[in-house]
Amino acid sequence: MKIAVDAMGGDNAPDVVVQGAAAAVSELGIDVVLVGNEAAVNTALRPRSRPDCLTIQNCTEVVEMDESPLKGVRQKKDASIRVAFELVARGEADAVVSAGNSGATLAAGLLTVSRMAGVERPGIASIMPGEKGPVVLIDVGANVDCRPSHLVQFGVMASAFATSCLGMVQPRIGLLSIGEEGGKGNEQVRLAHELFMDSGLNFAGNVEGRDILAGEVPIIVCDGFVGNVVLKLSENLAERITRILKAELMGAFLGRMAAFIGKGCFMRFRNKLAYEEYGGAPLLGINGVGIVCHGGSSSKAIKNAIGLAARYVDNRVLEKMASELSALKKENTQ
Amino acid sequence: MKIAVDAMGGDNAPDVVVQGAAAAVSELGIDVVLVGNEAAVNTALRPRSRPDCLTIQNCTEVVEMDESPLKGVRQKKDASIRVAFELVARGEADAVVSAGNSGATLAAGLLTVSRMAGVERPGIASIMPGEKGPVVLIDVGANVDCRPSHLVQFGVMASAFATSCLGMVQPRIGLLSIGEEGGKGNEQVRLAHELFMDSGLNFAGNVEGRDILAGEVPIIVCDGFVGNVVLKLSENLAERITRILKAELMGAFLGRMAAFIGKGCFMRFRNKLAYEEYGGAPLLGINGVGIVCHGGSSSKAIKNAIGLAARYVDNRVLEKMASELSALKKENTQ
Repeated sequence: MKIAVDAMGGDNAPDVVVQGAAAAVSELGIDVVLVGNEAAVNTALRPRSRPDCLTIQNCTEVVEMDESPLKGVRQKKDASIRVAFELVARGEADAVVSAGNSGATLAAGLLTVSRMAGVERPGIASIMPGEKGPVVLIDVGANVDCRPSHLVQFGVMASAFATSCLGMVQPRIGLLSIGEEGGKGNEQVRLAHELFMDSGLNFAGNVEGRDILAGEVPIIVCDGFVGNVVLKLSENLAERITRILKAELMGAFLGRMAAFIGKGCFMRFRNKLAYEEYGGAPLLGINGVGIVCHGGSSSKAIKNAIGLAARYVDNRVLEKMASELSALKKENTQ
Repeated sequence: MKIAVDAMGGDNAPDVVVQGAAAAVSELGIDVVLVGNEAAVNTALRPRSRPDCLTIQNCTEVVEMDESPLKGVRQKKDASIRVAFELVARGEADAVVSAGNSGATLAAGLLTVSRMAGVERPGIASIMPGEKGPVVLIDVGANVDCRPSHLVQFGVMASAFATSCLGMVQPRIGLLSIGEEGGKGNEQVRLAHELFMDSGLNFAGNVEGRDILAGEVPIIVCDGFVGNVVLKLSENLAERITRILKAELMGAFLGRMAAFIGKGCFMRFRNKLAYEEYGGAPLLGINGVGIVCHGGSSSKAIKNAIGLAARYVDNRVLEKMASELSALKKENTQ
């Protein structure tokens, strides 16, 4: 097992990425190949001594955050994200982890390992901290204009992933809408509801915004526009709430005393809203394992994303996904 | 000034609605006419003595929460929401407040006072607790499939409302998308961005999910599907966070002590996330004033919604909105 990590991707690359990779090697015992500018990676590694199972694959280009993903990946043949996926395509690595341009990660995956059979569009699934355990929200930004059939395929892929990697048992799939009845929602969602009803999947019907993080329905599908808004809003709210609370408590003497005494409680509270536990969002629907991390990921998030990638490979999720997609296809053509 | 309140609308109608109306009369000095079943309203009023400026308009029907709004309003000629808007159409009341079926409120408004010139689709604007003051999000559920021009009209209306009723000065209008650049987003948003750029409005460009409650941009436009998901997710998160924190603090002896000492701080924290300050969401784009309240509104929320309706009328928002819509039309045809 070897994970290719895009050393050049992320707001604080390569330093934070390299630290996270080193932690994955030493704490999780996973082999990592850092893909990026060798000199910069070596500088970031110093003064640490590099263990044998942490290697470097030198490359000279980077797809920047504000660059057109498709153009960047096509034109920069030596871009770190492209080289990382080529290692997977050649069988020299088992998965890719990147905190860089997520569109470029998607584009590089499609270009190298290509789309999975039965999938019209790959999707990015975010693992969010639900009240009763993790919630998988798909798609969070790969596809902004989805057809109803894309949403059904997202459901199949997220379900296979959650069963294999998160230990969920027959997870229910909810369709994000603005009312519980099947007739509620926009045209895309009303049509997707009909497809889900006929799909043979474990479909929970429509769910609303208030249900997303409740966790009663652990898989939520929506188009990438809505999902991206939901993800960024939730992250902002969690971060903001921690900040307001801190300011309120530190502003008064009694508050400071309360904060001191209740420190353990606040730490647990923060952890319940933490977004870095899984470290990254799996890119589902390509013939390879890819994990997309937040640009501002901490080294802990990078380490956890590498751990998630290893579980994804170990549990043979790609095979399960392919077999369930093929079952869906048969169901629909019968 | 007289506000028509739909006494039969809401999860706890007529009791909670009647209490809120009575509080608006006694605390805010606003005249209210309660529209609903007279016997039920009288029972809810007891043992309070009814002041002269709190009257009752008897009617026999109700559009239920799960009923088709348009059908309900058309067929039930004596439905409370329809009768309330008819009072406005006849000049016997100045505004309508309802915690009932919001689709029915929209339908009744369109049927009685009709759509405003220059507006293709009315929208519901929610006033949310932003970090730097209120944020107006429009649309939160009236229109699930919007055209780009609808989004621009939402911006004009919300801006006129926020200027007149919330004291904002030349508020900037943001277009909710999934990236800051104009080219980012789905097709609807990319086209709307171009329209906004040519509109002469105070356009701040695209904003993302994380910016919604930051408050840097106080007016956010989006289609009613996305807006409804955002509103319900935010409400759920705010409610959930208060609950987690309480459970964490009450679960440990030190936490209980911290909670006791820091009580004032927690109250302020809760208030910063409170959604009942404005009580309701204005329905913008009809020739009349309508405020839509949450089905589960408290009596305090109903009272505040009545206060908001009165400010809406007092500040002649409808006239300002009409004049700005007509300026937009001229701008676009030049």
